[in-house]
Amino acid sequence: MSTIISPIVGIIGGAAPTKEETTAAESVGRALAQAGATLICGGLGGVMEAACRGAKSAGGLTIGILPGTDAGEANPYIDIPIVTGMRCARNVIIARTAQAVIAIGGRYGTLSEIAFALNFGKPVVGLGTWEMSREGRPPAPIVRAATPQEAVEQALDLARRR
Amino acid sequence: MSTIISPIVGIIGGAAPTKEETTAAESVGRALAQAGATLICGGLGGVMEAACRGAKSAGGLTIGILPGTDAGEANPYIDIPIVTGMRCARNVIIARTAQAVIAIGGRYGTLSEIAFALNFGKPVVGLGTWEMSREGRPPAPIVRAATPQEAVEQALDLARRR
Amino acid sequence: MSTIISPIVGIIGGAAPTKEETTAAESVGRALAQAGATLICGGLGGVMEAACRGAKSAGGLTIGILPGTDAGEANPYIDIPIVTGMRCARNVIIARTAQAVIAIGGRYGTLSEIAFALNFGKPVVGLGTWEMSREGRPPAPIVRAATPQEAVEQALDLARRR
Amino acid sequence: MSTIISPIVGIIGGAAPTKEETTAAESVGRALAQAGATLICGGLGGVMEAACRGAKSAGGLTIGILPGTDAGEANPYIDIPIVTGMRCARNVIIARTAQAVIAIGGRYGTLSEIAFALNFGKPVVGLGTWEMSREGRPPAPIVRAATPQEAVEQALDLARRR
Repeated sequence: MSTIISPIVGIIGGAAPTKEETTAAESVGRALAQAGATLICGGLGGVMEAACRGAKSAGGLTIGILPGTDAGEANPYIDIPIVTGMRCARNVIIARTAQAVIAIGGRYGTLSEIAFALNFGKPVVGLGTWEMSREGRPPAPIVRAATPQEAVEQALDLARRR
Repeated sequence: MSTIISPIVGIIGGAAPTKEETTAAESVGRALAQAGATLICGGLGGVMEAACRGAKSAGGLTIGILPGTDAGEANPYIDIPIVTGMRCARNVIIARTAQAVIAIGGRYGTLSEIAFALNFGKPVVGLGTWEMSREGRPPAPIVRAATPQEAVEQALDLARRR
Repeated sequence: MSTIISPIVGIIGGAAPTKEETTAAESVGRALAQAGATLICGGLGGVMEAACRGAKSAGGLTIGILPGTDAGEANPYIDIPIVTGMRCARNVIIARTAQAVIAIGGRYGTLSEIAFALNFGKPVVGLGTWEMSREGRPPAPIVRAATPQEAVEQALDLARRR
Repeated sequence: MSTIISPIVGIIGGAAPTKEETTAAESVGRALAQAGATLICGGLGGVMEAACRGAKSAGGLTIGILPGTDAGEANPYIDIPIVTGMRCARNVIIARTAQAVIAIGGRYGTLSEIAFALNFGKPVVGLGTWEMSREGRPPAPIVRAATPQEAVEQALDLARRR
């Protein structure tokens, strides 16, 4: 009876991306929208804004989980601004809500979101993002994608298999 | 450029409502959807579910800010389940995101959401809910509505004036 | 084997108290420390600072659950600054950690903490604070105290009976 | 005027450590207490419990930032149980409150705490924990220690220089 808007895919990445990361984020957002997925992110600029711009160019739906106390901090491509006032504790909410996440570049905030997604058993697809390991253990199960299109295909495929 | 889904109105109320509160919540949800507003709530049963059922019967959009760690706890009328895992700290998010809230009955959880909405300067409309006061002070500025239709009109009017 | 520091009692109240509320808060803090209880509060000024000053004058231990991102915002009588960065979502933590709370005056933030304490089944003692009710229901179970000494006795008695 | 309990050092690590990690955690906790530092951690078992046991054996003070809703989940060496009910969003609070953190082994929860500590500009000392990097960037600034004693010395030195 409810409107199915599914799956919800998280895009995580920094507020100060390179030109290549910005282009990749926009392509990822567009491909997600074309596939009928909803995009969730931290709602601010950089990778987040580029991904939302891509999603809106293809008629997608975008959710921003904002760290501050004002919906006005959302980038202009956010349809649904969720205002938390909890600063980076909001990273947990993105990782819990998404059925898969795609990490593009990023710094320590992105690293925290990758960690939470792995902790919650969510598929993580990486485009030029962190690599991490512990001696004597298998590496963290981040699926490496070579292109935005491949990242979206992998994320959707993994989200559907869960 | 972004899709405008506005305003977002919060419905707050308990998980174990009376029959009258359930009927009122469903009417409030339907009237909100007919007015083009988006509904945000705690995503569970009782008043929350009845309001969402009403909203979906009129083609509205519903957001559930869930306390637990599983999107599956959302009532069946939630379009967008936001999974927080923060239990009742999620009440803050509902009050911050909504541009106005309508309180229907409710117990202490509802009281906490009324308190946060007032704290954040958001209009609060009450349908048979808490009254609160401090000696020697003006009463808390809750707008009392006599009917679901009046509650929705007041909430939308107050949200637009902010 | 662990050091017992118990019970932990919450003091909740506003940042802009009257002179009478400030005096009462300092007396409450001092009496709590004399009884061997630990004080927990929001860590800022007003009622919080006065209560901590009273507690430290009697050699007590004080915990501040801070809303911001900097331990430096704690009042000078806080021994243990807990830095949340979650703004008023930190109110939940005070209500969950305290074994009883004493509310002194206060505005909507205090009201939210009373609501959470009642929601979690914690005893709430009031000194000139909010009264709240719903038509046809018994009033909220706030124990009214006439003096700071009585407030502390009631809070400790109720905390021990839980 | 307030009691100085300083610095506060975070110990982060998993609930299911190896025997070597357990021994290291206990040594770290003991050395921190001997140096007069306060220990903050997630309050549960494994590395957290071992570190607290070490700290209490040397008369230290221990704070546990608990994920659940019950102070009873704290390990028996926690002096001050802070009850959040926010599950792993509580990891943010440990990283914000500590003036330096020592990571011992750990899995994805520990990785999220390392990420937050780095994000907040806190010194991170690692004992057999995660390594992480991004292509073309300098590695994450985790100070590697060879022994528990060295980890404590580094953490205290870095905390004091901030």
